[in-house]
Amino acid sequence: MPTTSPPLSPTPRTTVVRGHRRATADRAALHDVLRHALVCHLGVVVGEGADAHPVVLPTAFGWDPDGPDEGGSLYLHGSVASRSLRAAPRATVCVTLTLLDGLVLARSAFHHSANYRSAVVLGTPRVVTDPAERGRALDLLVEQVVPGRAATLRAHTRKELAATSVLALPLHEASVKVRAGDPVDEPDDVAAGAWAGVLPLRQVAGDPQGAADAGAPVPLDVRRRAAALAPH
Amino acid sequence: MPTTSPPLSPTPRTTVVRGHRRATADRAALHDVLRHALVCHLGVVVGEGADAHPVVLPTAFGWDPDGPDEGGSLYLHGSVASRSLRAAPRATVCVTLTLLDGLVLARSAFHHSANYRSAVVLGTPRVVTDPAERGRALDLLVEQVVPGRAATLRAHTRKELAATSVLALPLHEASVKVRAGDPVDEPDDVAAGAWAGVLPLRQVAGDPQGAADAGAPVPLDVRRRAAALAPH
Repeated sequence: MPTTSPPLSPTPRTTVVRGHRRATADRAALHDVLRHALVCHLGVVVGEGADAHPVVLPTAFGWDPDGPDEGGSLYLHGSVASRSLRAAPRATVCVTLTLLDGLVLARSAFHHSANYRSAVVLGTPRVVTDPAERGRALDLLVEQVVPGRAATLRAHTRKELAATSVLALPLHEASVKVRAGDPVDEPDDVAAGAWAGVLPLRQVAGDPQGAADAGAPVPLDVRRRAAALAPH
Repeated sequence: MPTTSPPLSPTPRTTVVRGHRRATADRAALHDVLRHALVCHLGVVVGEGADAHPVVLPTAFGWDPDGPDEGGSLYLHGSVASRSLRAAPRATVCVTLTLLDGLVLARSAFHHSANYRSAVVLGTPRVVTDPAERGRALDLLVEQVVPGRAATLRAHTRKELAATSVLALPLHEASVKVRAGDPVDEPDDVAAGAWAGVLPLRQVAGDPQGAADAGAPVPLDVRRRAAALAPH
Protein backbone atom coordinates (compact mmCIF):
# COMPACT_ATOMS: atom_id res chain seq x y z
CA MET A 1 0.00 0.00 0.00
CA PRO A 2 1.62 3.28 -1.04
CA THR A 3 2.07 5.88 1.64
CA THR A 4 3.37 9.42 1.65
CA SER A 5 4.63 9.09 5.22
CA PRO A 6 8.38 9.04 5.76
CA PRO A 7 9.92 5.66 6.51
CA LEU A 8 10.96 4.87 10.05
CA SER A 9 14.39 6.27 10.80
CA PRO A 10 15.94 3.83 13.23
CA THR A 11 18.88 5.09 15.21
CA PRO A 12 21.46 2.65 16.57
CA ARG A 13 19.18 2.49 19.64
CA THR A 14 16.21 1.20 17.69
CA THR A 15 18.04 -0.88 15.11
CA VAL A 16 16.89 -4.41 15.66
CA VAL A 17 19.94 -6.58 16.19
CA ARG A 18 18.43 -9.94 17.01
CA GLY A 19 15.85 -11.33 14.63
CA HIS A 20 16.53 -8.64 12.06
CA ARG A 21 14.62 -10.66 9.49
CA ARG A 22 11.53 -9.84 11.53
CA ALA A 23 12.20 -6.08 11.59
CA THR A 24 10.24 -4.12 9.05
CA ALA A 25 11.44 -0.54 8.68
CA ASP A 26 8.06 0.42 7.46
CA ARG A 27 5.88 3.20 8.72
CA ALA A 28 2.75 1.37 7.56
CA ALA A 29 3.61 -1.51 9.89
CA LEU A 30 4.02 0.93 12.79
CA HIS A 31 0.65 2.46 11.98
CA ASP A 32 -0.93 -0.99 11.85
CA VAL A 33 0.27 -1.67 15.39
CA LEU A 34 -0.82 1.77 16.62
CA ARG A 35 -4.25 1.31 15.05
CA HIS A 36 -4.97 -2.01 16.73
CA ALA A 37 -3.27 -1.82 20.14
CA LEU A 38 -5.52 -1.03 23.13
CA VAL A 39 -2.75 -0.59 25.68
CA CYS A 40 0.99 -0.02 25.62
CA HIS A 41 3.77 -0.75 28.09
CA LEU A 42 5.67 2.32 29.26
CA GLY A 43 9.22 1.77 30.48
CA VAL A 44 10.97 4.45 32.50
CA VAL A 45 14.13 4.48 34.59
CA VAL A 46 13.44 5.49 38.18
CA GLY A 47 15.96 6.11 40.95
CA GLU A 48 19.48 7.48 40.69
CA GLY A 49 22.92 5.96 40.38
CA ALA A 50 23.17 2.44 41.76
CA ASP A 51 19.45 2.53 42.64
CA ALA A 52 18.39 3.29 39.06
CA HIS A 53 16.17 0.56 37.69
CA PRO A 54 13.51 0.13 35.04
CA VAL A 55 9.81 0.16 35.77
CA VAL A 56 7.35 -1.07 33.14
CA LEU A 57 3.66 -0.29 33.48
CA PRO A 58 0.70 -0.97 31.22
CA THR A 59 -1.12 2.18 30.24
CA ALA A 60 -3.57 3.64 27.78
CA PHE A 61 -2.40 5.79 24.90
CA GLY A 62 -3.71 8.05 22.18
CA TRP A 63 -2.34 8.41 18.67
CA ASP A 64 -2.36 11.39 16.36
CA PRO A 65 -0.66 10.55 13.05
CA ASP A 66 -0.73 14.27 12.24
CA GLY A 67 0.36 15.44 15.70
CA PRO A 68 3.02 18.13 16.11
CA ASP A 69 5.85 15.71 16.90
CA GLU A 70 8.16 14.23 14.29
CA GLY A 71 6.51 11.11 12.87
CA GLY A 72 3.25 11.94 14.63
CA SER A 73 2.40 12.00 18.34
CA LEU A 74 1.79 9.23 20.83
CA TYR A 75 -0.01 10.63 23.88
CA LEU A 76 0.21 9.28 27.42
CA HIS A 77 -1.66 10.56 30.42
CA GLY A 78 -1.81 10.01 34.10
CA SER A 79 -2.30 11.59 37.46
CA VAL A 80 -0.12 14.64 38.01
CA ALA A 81 1.17 12.77 41.08
CA SER A 82 2.27 9.65 39.16
CA ARG A 83 5.87 8.65 39.86
CA SER A 84 6.54 7.22 36.42
CA LEU A 85 5.05 10.19 34.57
CA ARG A 86 6.96 12.64 36.75
CA ALA A 87 10.21 10.84 35.92
CA ALA A 88 9.47 10.62 32.22
CA PRO A 89 9.99 14.14 30.80
CA ARG A 90 13.57 14.29 32.05
CA ALA A 91 14.85 11.27 30.17
CA THR A 92 14.34 8.76 27.41
CA VAL A 93 11.36 6.48 27.85
CA CYS A 94 10.39 3.37 25.92
CA VAL A 95 6.86 2.63 24.81
CA THR A 96 6.23 -0.89 23.54
CA LEU A 97 3.03 -2.01 21.83
CA THR A 98 2.44 -5.71 21.28
CA LEU A 99 -0.24 -7.55 19.34
CA LEU A 100 -0.06 -11.29 19.95
CA ASP A 101 -1.38 -13.06 16.85
CA GLY A 102 -0.63 -16.69 17.53
CA LEU A 103 1.37 -19.38 19.26
CA VAL A 104 3.92 -20.97 16.94
CA LEU A 105 4.03 -24.62 17.94
CA ALA A 106 7.07 -26.28 16.43
CA ARG A 107 8.30 -29.88 16.64
CA SER A 108 11.06 -28.88 19.05
CA ALA A 109 10.91 -26.61 22.10
CA PHE A 110 13.76 -24.61 20.55
CA HIS A 111 11.72 -23.53 17.54
CA HIS A 112 8.60 -22.60 19.46
CA SER A 113 7.81 -18.95 18.89
CA ALA A 114 4.93 -16.51 18.60
CA ASN A 115 3.33 -14.66 15.75
CA TYR A 116 3.10 -11.02 16.72
CA ARG A 117 3.33 -7.42 15.65
CA SER A 118 5.34 -5.28 18.03
CA ALA A 119 6.53 -1.68 18.02
CA VAL A 120 9.20 -0.13 20.24
CA VAL A 121 9.26 3.67 20.45
CA LEU A 122 12.08 5.55 22.19
CA GLY A 123 12.04 9.24 22.94
CA THR A 124 12.00 12.01 25.48
CA PRO A 125 8.41 12.99 26.16
CA ARG A 126 7.18 16.52 25.76
CA VAL A 127 4.85 17.81 28.50
CA VAL A 128 1.72 18.99 26.71
CA THR A 129 0.65 22.35 28.09
CA ASP A 130 -1.46 23.88 25.33
CA PRO A 131 -5.09 23.52 26.47
CA ALA A 132 -6.41 22.68 23.02
CA GLU A 133 -3.78 19.97 22.46
CA ARG A 134 -4.39 18.61 25.97
CA GLY A 135 -8.09 18.26 25.27
CA ARG A 136 -7.44 16.67 21.88
CA ALA A 137 -4.94 14.23 23.39
CA LEU A 138 -7.40 13.14 26.07
CA ASP A 139 -10.05 12.66 23.40
CA LEU A 140 -7.64 10.51 21.40
CA LEU A 141 -7.07 8.28 24.44
CA VAL A 142 -10.81 7.50 24.35
CA GLU A 143 -10.88 7.21 20.55
CA GLN A 144 -8.11 4.61 20.68
CA VAL A 145 -10.37 2.17 22.54
CA VAL A 146 -13.77 3.14 21.12
CA PRO A 147 -13.65 5.16 17.89
CA GLY A 148 -16.36 7.80 17.80
CA ARG A 149 -16.87 7.85 21.55
CA ALA A 150 -15.10 11.10 22.47
CA ALA A 151 -17.65 13.21 20.60
CA THR A 152 -20.48 11.64 22.62
CA LEU A 153 -19.04 12.60 26.02
CA ARG A 154 -19.39 15.84 27.94
CA ALA A 155 -16.44 18.27 27.81
CA HIS A 156 -13.45 17.86 30.13
CA THR A 157 -13.80 20.01 33.23
CA ARG A 158 -11.07 22.41 34.36
CA LYS A 159 -10.64 20.33 37.51
CA GLU A 160 -10.15 17.15 35.48
CA LEU A 161 -7.66 18.84 33.17
CA ALA A 162 -5.72 20.23 36.15
CA ALA A 163 -5.46 16.75 37.68
CA THR A 164 -4.11 15.14 34.51
CA SER A 165 -0.58 15.12 33.09
CA VAL A 166 -0.39 14.72 29.33
CA LEU A 167 2.85 13.71 27.63
CA ALA A 168 3.60 13.47 23.91
CA LEU A 169 6.19 11.15 22.43
CA PRO A 170 7.41 11.55 18.84
CA LEU A 171 6.85 8.45 16.70
CA HIS A 172 10.17 9.06 14.97
CA GLU A 173 12.61 6.73 16.69
CA ALA A 174 10.80 3.44 16.40
CA SER A 175 11.28 -0.12 15.29
CA VAL A 176 8.69 -2.69 14.37
CA LYS A 177 9.00 -6.45 14.42
CA VAL A 178 6.51 -8.77 12.80
CA ARG A 179 6.46 -12.56 12.80
CA ALA A 180 3.83 -14.43 10.85
CA GLY A 181 3.40 -17.88 9.41
CA ASP A 182 4.37 -21.44 10.11
CA PRO A 183 7.00 -22.77 12.49
CA VAL A 184 10.44 -23.25 10.96
CA ASP A 185 11.64 -26.67 12.04
CA GLU A 186 14.80 -28.69 11.57
CA PRO A 187 14.55 -30.97 8.50
CA ASP A 188 15.09 -34.07 10.64
CA ASP A 189 12.18 -33.05 12.88
CA VAL A 190 9.91 -32.48 9.89
CA ALA A 191 10.89 -35.87 8.49
CA ALA A 192 9.96 -37.52 11.80
CA GLY A 193 6.35 -36.65 10.96
CA ALA A 194 5.00 -34.91 14.07
CA TRP A 195 2.39 -32.17 13.83
CA ALA A 196 3.42 -28.53 13.91
CA GLY A 197 1.43 -25.40 13.33
CA VAL A 198 0.02 -22.21 14.70
CA LEU A 199 -2.67 -21.62 17.29
CA PRO A 200 -4.10 -18.26 16.18
CA LEU A 201 -4.91 -15.79 18.95
CA ARG A 202 -7.14 -12.76 18.91
CA GLN A 203 -8.38 -10.23 21.43
CA VAL A 204 -12.17 -10.26 21.26
CA ALA A 205 -14.99 -8.40 22.96
CA GLY A 206 -18.04 -9.87 24.58
CA ASP A 207 -21.41 -8.13 24.76
CA PRO A 208 -21.27 -4.67 26.35
CA GLN A 209 -22.23 -4.90 30.03
CA GLY A 210 -24.19 -1.88 31.19
CA ALA A 211 -23.25 -0.50 34.61
CA ALA A 212 -25.72 -1.08 37.42
CA ASP A 213 -26.73 2.58 37.12
CA ALA A 214 -26.77 2.68 33.29
CA GLY A 215 -29.88 4.61 32.33
CA ALA A 216 -29.87 4.30 28.57
CA PRO A 217 -29.43 1.72 25.82
CA VAL A 218 -25.92 0.79 24.64
CA PRO A 219 -24.83 3.64 22.36
CA LEU A 220 -23.87 3.19 18.73
CA ASP A 221 -20.12 3.79 19.26
CA VAL A 222 -19.93 0.97 21.81
CA ARG A 223 -22.07 -1.39 19.72
CA ARG A 224 -19.83 -0.76 16.70
CA ARG A 225 -16.70 -1.42 18.74
CA ALA A 226 -18.13 -4.63 20.16
CA ALA A 227 -19.05 -5.77 16.66
CA ALA A 228 -15.58 -4.96 15.30
CA LEU A 229 -13.99 -7.02 18.07
CA ALA A 230 -16.57 -9.82 18.07
CA PRO A 231 -15.34 -13.41 17.83
CA HIS A 232 -15.77 -14.73 14.31
CA MET B 1 -8.85 -19.48 48.96
CA PRO B 2 -6.32 -20.44 51.65
CA THR B 3 -2.74 -20.73 50.57
CA THR B 4 0.42 -21.74 52.33
CA SER B 5 2.54 -19.45 50.15
CA PRO B 6 4.03 -16.38 51.78
CA PRO B 7 2.33 -13.08 51.01
CA LEU B 8 4.00 -10.72 48.58
CA SER B 9 6.62 -8.65 50.32
CA PRO B 10 6.65 -5.36 48.51
CA THR B 11 9.71 -3.22 49.00
CA PRO B 12 9.47 0.56 48.61
CA ARG B 13 10.24 -0.12 44.91
CA THR B 14 7.18 -2.26 44.41
CA THR B 15 4.81 -0.52 46.77
CA VAL B 16 2.00 0.76 44.61
CA VAL B 17 1.70 4.49 45.19
CA ARG B 18 -0.94 5.51 42.68
CA GLY B 19 -4.17 3.55 42.66
CA HIS B 20 -3.31 1.75 45.87
CA ARG B 21 -6.91 0.63 46.19
CA ARG B 22 -6.23 -1.56 43.16
CA ALA B 23 -3.10 -3.16 44.65
CA THR B 24 -3.68 -6.56 46.14
CA ALA B 25 -0.77 -7.77 48.21
CA ASP B 26 -1.82 -11.28 47.59
CA ARG B 27 0.26 -14.10 46.27
CA ALA B 28 -2.83 -15.79 44.87
CA ALA B 29 -3.45 -12.79 42.64
CA LEU B 30 0.15 -12.93 41.38
CA HIS B 31 -0.26 -16.62 40.63
CA ASP B 32 -3.51 -15.92 38.77
CA VAL B 33 -1.67 -13.51 36.48
CA LEU B 34 1.25 -15.90 36.00
CA ARG B 35 -1.11 -18.75 35.21
CA HIS B 36 -2.95 -16.90 32.46
CA ALA B 37 -0.36 -14.65 30.81
CA LEU B 38 1.12 -15.86 27.53
CA VAL B 39 3.81 -13.19 27.21
CA CYS B 40 5.46 -10.69 29.49
CA HIS B 41 7.20 -7.37 28.89
CA LEU B 42 10.84 -7.30 30.00
CA GLY B 43 12.29 -3.89 30.85
CA VAL B 44 16.04 -3.43 31.10
CA VAL B 45 18.29 -0.38 31.23
CA VAL B 46 20.81 -0.35 28.38
CA GLY B 47 23.66 2.09 27.84
CA GLU B 48 25.75 3.88 30.42
CA GLY B 49 25.57 7.28 32.11
CA ALA B 50 23.74 9.88 30.06
CA ASP B 51 23.05 7.30 27.34
CA ALA B 52 21.29 4.94 29.75
CA HIS B 53 17.70 4.36 28.73
CA PRO B 54 15.01 1.74 29.18
CA VAL B 55 14.18 -0.87 26.57
CA VAL B 56 10.96 -2.87 26.87
CA LEU B 57 10.51 -6.02 24.80
CA PRO B 58 7.73 -8.61 24.73
CA THR B 59 8.99 -12.07 25.45
CA ALA B 60 7.92 -15.55 26.47
CA PHE B 61 8.37 -16.78 30.00
CA GLY B 62 8.15 -19.91 32.09
CA TRP B 63 6.95 -20.17 35.66
CA ASP B 64 7.94 -22.61 38.39
CA PRO B 65 6.04 -21.86 41.62
CA ASP B 66 8.41 -24.29 43.37
CA GLY B 67 11.57 -23.02 41.67
CA PRO B 68 14.76 -22.39 43.67
CA ASP B 69 14.31 -18.61 43.85
CA GLU B 70 12.52 -16.83 46.68
CA GLY B 71 8.80 -16.77 45.89
CA GLY B 72 9.30 -19.18 42.99
CA SER B 73 11.10 -18.69 39.68
CA LEU B 74 10.16 -16.81 36.53
CA TYR B 75 12.30 -18.01 33.64
CA LEU B 76 13.30 -15.97 30.60
CA HIS B 77 15.29 -17.17 27.64
CA GLY B 78 16.87 -15.82 24.55
CA SER B 79 19.76 -16.03 22.20
CA VAL B 80 23.13 -15.95 23.93
CA ALA B 81 23.82 -12.93 21.69
CA SER B 82 20.76 -10.92 22.81
CA ARG B 83 21.60 -7.39 23.95
CA SER B 84 18.83 -7.15 26.52
CA LEU B 85 19.57 -10.56 28.06
CA ARG B 86 23.31 -9.79 28.18
CA ALA B 87 22.57 -6.57 30.06
CA ALA B 88 20.10 -8.18 32.43
CA PRO B 89 22.17 -10.21 34.91
CA ARG B 90 24.19 -7.17 35.98
CA ALA B 91 21.27 -5.07 37.17
CA THR B 92 17.67 -4.92 38.22
CA VAL B 93 15.15 -5.75 35.53
CA CYS B 94 11.39 -5.33 35.51
CA VAL B 95 9.03 -7.97 34.19
CA THR B 96 5.43 -6.86 33.73
CA LEU B 97 2.55 -9.19 32.92
CA THR B 98 -0.77 -7.72 31.86
CA LEU B 99 -4.15 -9.33 31.31
CA LEU B 100 -6.61 -6.90 29.76
CA ASP B 101 -10.11 -7.89 30.87
CA GLY B 102 -12.26 -5.04 29.61
CA LEU B 103 -12.67 -1.45 28.53
CA VAL B 104 -14.31 0.67 31.22
CA LEU B 105 -16.51 3.12 29.37
CA ALA B 106 -17.58 5.91 31.68
CA ARG B 107 -19.80 8.94 31.05
CA SER B 108 -16.76 11.24 31.03
CA ALA B 109 -13.41 10.80 29.31
CA PHE B 110 -11.78 11.35 32.72
CA HIS B 111 -13.31 8.24 34.26
CA HIS B 112 -12.59 5.93 31.34
CA SER B 113 -10.39 3.09 32.50
CA ALA B 114 -9.65 -0.55 31.92
CA ASN B 115 -10.34 -3.72 33.82
CA TYR B 116 -7.12 -5.64 34.09
CA ARG B 117 -4.88 -7.86 36.16
CA SER B 118 -1.27 -6.77 36.10
CA ALA B 119 1.88 -7.90 37.90
CA VAL B 120 5.19 -6.05 38.14
CA VAL B 121 8.22 -8.08 39.21
CA LEU B 122 11.56 -6.46 40.02
CA GLY B 123 14.79 -8.34 40.56
CA THR B 124 18.29 -9.14 39.44
CA PRO B 125 18.18 -12.22 37.26
CA ARG B 126 20.26 -15.26 37.99
CA VAL B 127 21.97 -16.92 35.02
CA VAL B 128 20.82 -20.53 35.05
CA THR B 129 23.79 -22.82 34.44
CA ASP B 130 22.72 -26.16 35.89
CA PRO B 131 21.86 -28.37 32.90
CA ALA B 132 18.85 -29.98 34.57
CA GLU B 133 17.38 -26.63 35.58
CA ARG B 134 18.05 -25.20 32.11
CA GLY B 135 16.16 -28.04 30.49
CA ARG B 136 13.30 -27.72 32.97
CA ALA B 137 13.10 -23.96 32.42
CA LEU B 138 12.92 -24.37 28.64
CA ASP B 139 10.19 -26.98 29.10
CA LEU B 140 8.26 -24.53 31.30
CA LEU B 141 8.43 -21.89 28.56
CA VAL B 142 6.53 -24.32 26.32
CA GLU B 143 4.19 -25.42 29.12
CA GLN B 144 3.21 -21.80 29.74
CA VAL B 145 1.62 -21.55 26.29
CA VAL B 146 0.42 -25.15 25.82
CA PRO B 147 0.22 -27.20 29.01
CA GLY B 148 1.26 -30.80 28.41
CA ARG B 149 3.20 -30.03 25.25
CA ALA B 150 6.80 -30.23 26.54
CA ALA B 151 6.49 -33.95 27.25
CA THR B 152 5.46 -34.59 23.63
CA LEU B 153 8.56 -32.96 22.10
CA ARG B 154 11.97 -34.46 21.45
CA ALA B 155 14.74 -33.63 23.94
CA HIS B 156 16.70 -30.38 23.66
CA THR B 157 19.97 -30.90 21.75
CA ARG B 158 23.33 -29.83 23.16
CA LYS B 159 23.63 -27.32 20.31
CA GLU B 160 20.25 -25.78 21.15
CA LEU B 161 21.10 -25.58 24.84
CA ALA B 162 24.46 -23.94 24.04
CA ALA B 163 22.75 -21.30 21.90
CA THR B 164 20.22 -20.35 24.59
CA SER B 165 20.62 -18.10 27.62
CA VAL B 166 18.30 -18.91 30.51
CA LEU B 167 17.69 -16.39 33.29
CA ALA B 168 15.69 -16.85 36.49
CA LEU B 169 13.99 -14.02 38.33
CA PRO B 170 12.73 -14.46 41.91
CA LEU B 171 8.99 -13.81 42.28
CA HIS B 172 9.64 -12.17 45.64
CA GLU B 173 9.64 -8.45 44.93
CA ALA B 174 6.35 -8.05 43.11
CA SER B 175 3.18 -6.03 43.13
CA VAL B 176 -0.18 -6.84 41.61
CA LYS B 177 -2.90 -4.46 40.54
CA VAL B 178 -6.41 -5.55 39.70
CA ARG B 179 -9.32 -3.46 38.48
CA ALA B 180 -12.72 -5.02 37.95
CA GLY B 181 -16.28 -3.85 37.74
CA ASP B 182 -18.28 -0.89 36.62
CA PRO B 183 -17.10 2.62 35.80
CA VAL B 184 -17.13 5.03 38.72
CA ASP B 185 -18.76 8.24 37.47
CA GLU B 186 -19.50 11.64 38.95
CA PRO B 187 -23.01 11.75 40.47
CA ASP B 188 -24.01 14.58 38.12
CA ASP B 189 -22.98 12.50 35.12
CA VAL B 190 -24.95 9.50 36.34
CA ALA B 191 -27.99 11.72 36.89
CA ALA B 192 -27.73 12.98 33.31
CA GLY B 193 -28.75 9.49 32.25
CA ALA B 194 -26.17 8.46 29.64
CA TRP B 195 -25.09 4.84 29.26
CA ALA B 196 -21.93 3.60 30.90
CA GLY B 197 -20.52 0.14 31.24
CA VAL B 198 -17.81 -2.32 30.41
CA LEU B 199 -16.85 -3.89 27.12
CA PRO B 200 -15.37 -7.22 28.26
CA LEU B 201 -12.23 -8.37 26.44
CA ARG B 202 -10.69 -11.79 26.19
CA GLN B 203 -7.79 -13.38 24.34
CA VAL B 204 -9.19 -16.31 22.39
CA ALA B 205 -7.78 -18.97 20.10
CA GLY B 206 -9.05 -19.97 16.71
CA ASP B 207 -8.74 -23.45 15.27
CA PRO B 208 -5.19 -24.81 15.19
CA GLN B 209 -3.66 -24.24 11.76
CA GLY B 210 -1.36 -27.08 10.72
CA ALA B 211 1.88 -26.06 9.03
CA ALA B 212 2.16 -26.76 5.32
CA ASP B 213 4.43 -29.68 6.15
CA ALA B 214 2.39 -30.97 9.09
CA GLY B 215 2.29 -34.74 8.73
CA ALA B 216 -0.02 -35.73 11.56
CA PRO B 217 -3.36 -34.80 13.11
CA VAL B 218 -3.53 -31.96 15.66
CA PRO B 219 -2.25 -33.46 18.92
CA LEU B 220 -4.27 -33.62 22.12
CA ASP B 221 -2.24 -30.93 23.96
CA VAL B 222 -2.92 -28.38 21.21
CA ARG B 223 -6.61 -29.33 20.90
CA ARG B 224 -7.02 -28.95 24.66
CA ARG B 225 -5.35 -25.55 24.61
CA ALA B 226 -7.51 -24.35 21.72
CA ALA B 227 -10.62 -25.52 23.56
CA ALA B 228 -9.57 -23.76 26.78
CA LEU B 229 -9.06 -20.53 24.85
CA ALA B 230 -12.09 -20.91 22.57
CA PRO B 231 -14.56 -18.01 22.32
CA HIS B 232 -17.62 -18.71 24.41
